Amino acid sequence: MTPTPQDSTQPAHSTVSRRRLFGVAGAGALAGVSGVAGWGIASARDDQPAGGPLAYAFHGEHQAGIVTPAQDRLHFAAFDVTSDSRESLIELLEAWTVAAVAMTAGELVGGGAPQPYDAPPQDTGEAQDLDPAGLTITFGFGPTLFEKDGVDRFGLRDRQPEELRRLPHFPADNLDEVRSDGDLCIQACANDPQVAVHAIRNLSRIGFGTVSMRWAQLGFGRTSSTSTTQATPRNLFGFKDGTANLHAEEPEELSDHVWVQPGDDPAADWLAGGSYLVARRISMRIETWDRTSLREQESLIGRDRVEGAPLSGGTEFTEPDFALQGRSGPIMPMDSHVRLAHPAQNNNTKLLRRGYNFTDGADALGRLDAGLFFIAFVREPLTRYVPMQTVLSRDDALMEYLEHTGSGLWAVPPGIAQGHYVGQALFT
Amino acid sequence: MTPTPQDSTQPAHSTVSRRRLFGVAGAGALAGVSGVAGWGIASARDDQPAGGPLAYAFHGEHQAGIVTPAQDRLHFAAFDVTSDSRESLIELLEAWTVAAVAMTAGELVGGGAPQPYDAPPQDTGEAQDLDPAGLTITFGFGPTLFEKDGVDRFGLRDRQPEELRRLPHFPADNLDEVRSDGDLCIQACANDPQVAVHAIRNLSRIGFGTVSMRWAQLGFGRTSSTSTTQATPRNLFGFKDGTANLHAEEPEELSDHVWVQPGDDPAADWLAGGSYLVARRISMRIETWDRTSLREQESLIGRDRVEGAPLSGGTEFTEPDFALQGRSGPIMPMDSHVRLAHPAQNNNTKLLRRGYNFTDGADALGRLDAGLFFIAFVREPLTRYVPMQTVLSRDDALMEYLEHTGSGLWAVPPGIAQGHYVGQALFT
Ligand code: HEM
Ligand code: HEM
Repeated sequence: MTPTPQDSTQPAHSTVSRRRLFGVAGAGALAGVSGVAGWGIASARDDQPAGGPLAYAFHGEHQAGIVTPAQDRLHFAAFDVTSDSRESLIELLEAWTVAAVAMTAGELVGGGAPQPYDAPPQDTGEAQDLDPAGLTITFGFGPTLFEKDGVDRFGLRDRQPEELRRLPHFPADNLDEVRSDGDLCIQACANDPQVAVHAIRNLSRIGFGTVSMRWAQLGFGRTSSTSTTQATPRNLFGFKDGTANLHAEEPEELSDHVWVQPGDDPAADWLAGGSYLVARRISMRIETWDRTSLREQESLIGRDRVEGAPLSGGTEFTEPDFALQGRSGPIMPMDSHVRLAHPAQNNNTKLLRRGYNFTDGADALGRLDAGLFFIAFVREPLTRYVPMQTVLSRDDALMEYLEHTGSGLWAVPPGIAQGHYVGQALFT
Repeated sequence: MTPTPQDSTQPAHSTVSRRRLFGVAGAGALAGVSGVAGWGIASARDDQPAGGPLAYAFHGEHQAGIVTPAQDRLHFAAFDVTSDSRESLIELLEAWTVAAVAMTAGELVGGGAPQPYDAPPQDTGEAQDLDPAGLTITFGFGPTLFEKDGVDRFGLRDRQPEELRRLPHFPADNLDEVRSDGDLCIQACANDPQVAVHAIRNLSRIGFGTVSMRWAQLGFGRTSSTSTTQATPRNLFGFKDGTANLHAEEPEELSDHVWVQPGDDPAADWLAGGSYLVARRISMRIETWDRTSLREQESLIGRDRVEGAPLSGGTEFTEPDFALQGRSGPIMPMDSHVRLAHPAQNNNTKLLRRGYNFTDGADALGRLDAGLFFIAFVREPLTRYVPMQTVLSRDDALMEYLEHTGSGLWAVPPGIAQGHYVGQALFT
């Protein structure tokens, strides 16, 4: 089955039926330039598409997978370039683009054309009968792509964005090198993990000889809503996560806080319309948390657990009242997560959070190796995200239950026009 | 939201709407004795429930999660009992039963009753707004529960089934001890991984002080259909998997091959109506496979990749013709997987396969740590499964691409009656 990708200008609330998809065949050529690129349907877990496949356009003003309503599964991979040829790197980005266009449309890599029987199949096949399941594939370029150990590997040094530097060491960081950084990253999100895994596997395979996979992370149960049409999901601490997130329906906020604007960085004009992706693998001390009283849990977060309302009162979407006093200080505790992360304490910084829960089995002591794979998209990571993370890592009472075990920062090129490859403006 | 579990006597094809679930409140008390216990809806990925939650009854003649149409996600965990008290073990099984009844109905552990604010919440909360997503929880008892290092730990030695012994070492086995065996096992399956993870986490938590988790495995994209109403899924080799599986619609075959019958084992009468669960964690050499020609892949399996038809001709469900000759021997190669695993070569042995794909990230060399977590239910593991596995491990040409890295065998008690706890007949 090979549905055509949903035109990115489709309204957010449409449910994509198979017939409808075929009906808009070729509409992708109209090139979507809506503020929210790559939208087909409004939500993931809460309202699964009633019937028929869900497909997001790969082409558009911005890459899909950022403001796209967060799908339910993640396969994230970081790669290092093993070749030192700029040509090979460009060829890889071209091949990845072609494959991503096919896979996000639910087509086979290689287009399903008849292949020689004595050659390995171009597509590994395990997603052959599955629909695209809302697959988005989002590419990012790490700082080391521009310069590594002082070497300008691909003639890109002059075009490295100011804001694209290795993230600093934050207080209490306990990073695992084999879960951190990488020259390139790919975020594959879909409502079916087999589709997301198939995407990373085939891209990895196409990269054989040019890149090698540095690390990968699977995630499930998106821990943020990125659209007001989605219900707020819960993270593994049992709390609603994403209440005060940026949402796709706020284009002006997104321009302010997520999308790199023309002129932001004269040396990196190629990044305008793009963003930065921050990833933090945060292990959660589940067993300890589970032995903590409800009172303590709620005052660590600053919200109540059932509804997600701020402790200062109201319902889930009421603004917290940080001034409100209780018997022994502010009702929203000074070291609560929500207080410290709120824009009011952070120079009006806002992030588009788009993380996933993970569990990687049990560790040697029988404890669940679980946590939150934090992903955020932000316009200025060094200027805006780093100060916020510094405060949280130092002062957030929640840190007693957390351990940051992986980290990475990538520049996410803008959306790809028909016939172009991802990041093309960087190479021209 | 707390839907009441779907009565297990509901016909297989009904789509459970939320209204309907509330409408049958209390119907579970009618006690289902249909051959296929625990059915609510017919399929998993292919036809997601059109709306409203999907719930399977926990109570019934057989445990749910065996012939239940394979859900799309797995969280499997093996536990060791750390206590030496028979009373504690019984109390744990009672508590697990109560929690499993609640969770499979989409209710909170502890029933959601108001809890003291200064105590840890009884339920960890991360599935609070999710529907049961077809959750089934299936319990198993390992050989070491009956006797370990010569010790009759819980006074159960006399009741150990003949067929419940540690699986032997098979040719080419490369087992990891921390992924093998265990006194108890729990298989949690659901269409939402957060629901399956929530189940294992809460059961593990309830067991604190009595058991500790030995190992766990997450899986996705069921690799078998267990009902003729399900389309055949694909495994990570890209081939359809489950074509020639036993199916829920064949009650006589299930009695012959899956359910332990009264009189099978006089010492272990408590197991009648139960089964045995074989688990094998099988790593797949994905990168090597992906470089193998389509011709080679198809002759290793014995079926064509696109349709899943036997190489001897026909369509997916045509019986293979093992006698049919080609130019250089039988068209179904002598060392092909399907030939060697077929009942005709195995004394008419049939298994109910119910495995899942897994990927546990990338290994140190950047290779995908992926494979198939093979689960099979079988009436006589030593007599029927072991010989088949011995042949496959020794002669199956596919083994060149496989490595068995984990293993376990558990007796699966029969279904639980209202007011009883799992395995109760073993202790009385
Ligand atoms: C495992 C780690 C984390 C957990 C369990 C967690 C949990 C939560 C929860 C429950 C909320 C309240 C609901 C909401 O508004 O979304 C929240 C809010 C928020 N979190 Fe986190 N968080 C974690 C890590 C982080 C990190 C690393 C950052 C960024 C550096 C961050 C930034 C935010 C922000 C900006 C808000 C919204 C604050 C507001 O405007 O009210 N969180 N988090
Ligand atoms: C990663 C390992 C394995 C892979 C990739 C695999 C793959 C397959 C495939 C593609 C089929 C054909 C479709 C079907 O009838 O389901 C099949 C059939 C079968 N497999 Fe496996 N299999 C694996 C391991 C095993 C193991 C360990 C056993 C049991 C010891 C087993 C037993 C069977 C049986 C009984 C059949 C049906 C044969 C028939 O009646 O035609 N498989 N397998």
